[in-house]
Amino acid sequence: MGGFNVSEKPLDFLRGFTVDFDLKTGMSKMVDTGKRYLSQMKGMFADEAAFDALLAKGDALVYEFHSMPVPEHEGDLAFGCSIVYPGKVGGEYFMTKGHFHTILDTAEGYYCLGGSGYMLLENEAGDYSAHELAPGQAVYVPKDYAHRSVNTSATEKLVTFFVFRADAGHDYGTIESKGYRRLVVERNGKPEVIDNPKWK
Amino acid sequence: MGGFNVSEKPLDFLRGFTVDFDLKTGMSKMVDTGKRYLSQMKGMFADEAAFDALLAKGDALVYEFHSMPVPEHEGDLAFGCSIVYPGKVGGEYFMTKGHFHTILDTAEGYYCLGGSGYMLLENEAGDYSAHELAPGQAVYVPKDYAHRSVNTSATEKLVTFFVFRADAGHDYGTIESKGYRRLVVERNGKPEVIDNPKWK
Repeated sequence: MGGFNVSEKPLDFLRGFTVDFDLKTGMSKMVDTGKRYLSQMKGMFADEAAFDALLAKGDALVYEFHSMPVPEHEGDLAFGCSIVYPGKVGGEYFMTKGHFHTILDTAEGYYCLGGSGYMLLENEAGDYSAHELAPGQAVYVPKDYAHRSVNTSATEKLVTFFVFRADAGHDYGTIESKGYRRLVVERNGKPEVIDNPKWK
Repeated sequence: MGGFNVSEKPLDFLRGFTVDFDLKTGMSKMVDTGKRYLSQMKGMFADEAAFDALLAKGDALVYEFHSMPVPEHEGDLAFGCSIVYPGKVGGEYFMTKGHFHTILDTAEGYYCLGGSGYMLLENEAGDYSAHELAPGQAVYVPKDYAHRSVNTSATEKLVTFFVFRADAGHDYGTIESKGYRRLVVERNGKPEVIDNPKWK
């Protein structure tokens, strides 16, 4: 094929690039993922005894996600995939830590490629909603809302493609210290949103 | 399922929402597409005689795309799918008009769900590149670059999921009046990038 001028550098933020994210698994041959193991999630799940018991069995991978080195500039976008593994801590489903954007006034888009679960949104005033994630469902995460992906499948990974403004920043601290007001737990074999007894 | 508080309004930009985009077709039951027919593409293809001859056979749908009513705010993101149909005008493949962002300093992300083709990038100084689109390939469109999707398949639709800053704006006029410096055409059965003889 003649005349093409695709950059030799795979991640050229000035001239553009292509990067692979497998439509089924979300994984990329070109970009590594950051990984969050159970041991890194201490305090995030409500049932601490169940957490300790599960961790004693092994340090499970809870989720992973791509973090491309996009310039943190208000005109830039960062994207990648998030993969949340199936599992539960007590009755609470495996999930991402969840975060606000440091620049609160920035939205995010998620597009579900596989699995099933919820995007749990919550703002500082306590308003919340849980948006179903299933293959082909896109979630619009509005500005000012913390967002957390929850995998409610017993067997499948929850795979989403996400895009956010590259300078939005991640505020994990607010959730790490205060928690979410609501949890997604299994009750009678089905997901249910309940109040978090430990919310501060 | 109890306790869920999913908004009754499907497109709630303040509290979030889920919207469907079929992973194969890109189509949505909730959001309509804008449609670009051949008659609306006059002057965009290099071979005007071939254009007139094809149009005489019928006003083919060249592409369609979602345009959600996201607030045009710098912290917001707009997303949807673009579907480019297979076809050629002379040797030139069906494509989108292509555009710069009105706010030049804003990037865009594309994630290919199906089909095959290229994202043709070109900046005002004439630098260009063509990035392959295939299922699972994401293209980072940098700031300052016009971007056009080109479907090089003879039979399949080119389906992409796109995300851009909601206030980026679309400058179609520059491309409509000046054209792209390069074209993607079929030569010996394969796609090739050539200089546009009509570029002004």
